[in-house]
Amino acid sequence: MGLLDYFRSSQPKGSANMAKERLQILVAHDRAERHRPSYLPNLQREILEVIRKYVDVDMNAVSVNYEQEETHEVLELNIVLPDTARNRA
Amino acid sequence: MGLLDYFRSSQPKGSANMAKERLQILVAHDRAERHRPSYLPNLQREILEVIRKYVDVDMNAVSVNYEQEETHEVLELNIVLPDTARNRA
Repeated sequence: MGLLDYFRSSQPKGSANMAKERLQILVAHDRAERHRPSYLPNLQREILEVIRKYVDVDMNAVSVNYEQEETHEVLELNIVLPDTARNRA
Repeated sequence: MGLLDYFRSSQPKGSANMAKERLQILVAHDRAERHRPSYLPNLQREILEVIRKYVDVDMNAVSVNYEQEETHEVLELNIVLPDTARNRA
């Protein structure tokens, strides 16, 4: 399954006509050493700061999901962006 | 299919014992307006800069994939990280 397919399948159905701006960021980390602390939480914070340079992000519109296994961790950020007019810099 | 499953299925088989450090970043953007230029290429550059604060990234070990459809675009960064010893800050 290609990436576009994955993201398409994870979109809410019937939302095509609403033309909502959405940004989804996934960070997956395969760790060689399981005992080191994860830097993903810090990375997440900094990535959000970078994104805010480009679009106006309401922190209430950001949902974060973090999954961790022994040597594998995935961070997911879902951001619903405000109306297009506000983004046009 | 959950996120962890997606990333697990996209891992190369038989690499478990090699304990390679890998970082995979996906950015998916649903665009309300198809005619505006994409900011994902710039975002990609800045996200890479953030990552390099945390780990020692060899730019030759970064592969980039970008897929675009009318109002949907996905950026994928795959990074093979160097041996753990070099990452330990």
